[in-house]
Amino acid sequence: MDQKSISKAVIRRLPRYYRYLGELMEEGVERISSNELSEKMRVTASQIRQDLNNFGGFGQQGYGYNVPYLYTEIGKILGLDKTHHMIIIGAGNLGQALANYVKFEKRGFKIVGIFDVNPVLKGISIRGNQIRMMDELPEFLKEQEVQIAALTLPKGNAAETADFLVQHGIKAIWNFAHLDLDVPEDVIVENVHLSESLMRLSYNLNCYVTEHQKNED
Amino acid sequence: MDQKSISKAVIRRLPRYYRYLGELMEEGVERISSNELSEKMRVTASQIRQDLNNFGGFGQQGYGYNVPYLYTEIGKILGLDKTHHMIIIGAGNLGQALANYVKFEKRGFKIVGIFDVNPVLKGISIRGNQIRMMDELPEFLKEQEVQIAALTLPKGNAAETADFLVQHGIKAIWNFAHLDLDVPEDVIVENVHLSESLMRLSYNLNCYVTEHQKNED
Repeated sequence: MDQKSISKAVIRRLPRYYRYLGELMEEGVERISSNELSEKMRVTASQIRQDLNNFGGFGQQGYGYNVPYLYTEIGKILGLDKTHHMIIIGAGNLGQALANYVKFEKRGFKIVGIFDVNPVLKGISIRGNQIRMMDELPEFLKEQEVQIAALTLPKGNAAETADFLVQHGIKAIWNFAHLDLDVPEDVIVENVHLSESLMRLSYNLNCYVTEHQKNED
Repeated sequence: MDQKSISKAVIRRLPRYYRYLGELMEEGVERISSNELSEKMRVTASQIRQDLNNFGGFGQQGYGYNVPYLYTEIGKILGLDKTHHMIIIGAGNLGQALANYVKFEKRGFKIVGIFDVNPVLKGISIRGNQIRMMDELPEFLKEQEVQIAALTLPKGNAAETADFLVQHGIKAIWNFAHLDLDVPEDVIVENVHLSESLMRLSYNLNCYVTEHQKNED
């Protein structure tokens, strides 16, 4: 199976399948037809079949999908059957929020370190991780295996810090800083640009108001 | 201009144009060709022209784009020329992080209230806003004009709270809770699902590792 050929749109949808299947498991549902899943998720049944066919199908004619099996398989595709060690760079509110999400750890993302430059934060413990100073990072990365770094820094320091992380072997950056990182091809960047999300909301709100006013004219 | 017909992909890219143009302004750049902008943003020049043509173009043959003009116009399209009042529901780390983002206010998103159910948080001031208790919300929404509610709550309370907000006239929800909200058609929801973002990162990391190992075999 060549995962490289799978479209970004499918990958964008996979975690949502995983979430719905997880909810079905919690409700004790053992099997579901693509029509029922379609109704629940508000995507067409043919979309669901197409998406899952990318990974070999999983469904059986006349039976539908086995929920725990499909949940486990999608989890594997997403790499959730492995443990990933993650560090957080920037222990402000956002960094602390990430460090406090218990759910990440349940899914195999284990936070092994939190770093900041602000000496006031040094030694504060967040779910068992004491905030370390940035100058401890090189030594830390030599001793620990870390796959993912979450960047929750101001924009001004983010580019330099990303370079530093890449030089020290980090292969995946979860970037919350409001800029595009310039990294080598083999480094994965997943951006969460909150300002841009808010602007899209504002765009849509604006459109609706305009349309609505037009209708009232 | 019928903004309704503009594709989601274009809208997804607009805030990024706005960000790059803002950076050019800070650097004092007055005008830029689509080729230069293309190189900077790493999208093709024809993509840029196509995207901006959705809104009437803005460029002049042989001149390129006037940076401050284009910045202002895209800002208007995104609704950033208006002030939006926003409340935050959930004053945990994430809610506090949002409340502390100075940039949102610069772009016209003014946080007018922060609400939580935890009495320990009551009265704590975040950038001039004292955290209020949820039972004060109905009265607050009668007195204040609020366009946007950011939901930074645990999943368990989010659906009910969203219903309540919609009943009280909120037309736009910035949803950080890890579920899909069921709201009337005229209510806009913009989701930030952090877990799903992290899973996409994990998927890509996993793919890379697999590919890489294959190449080494």
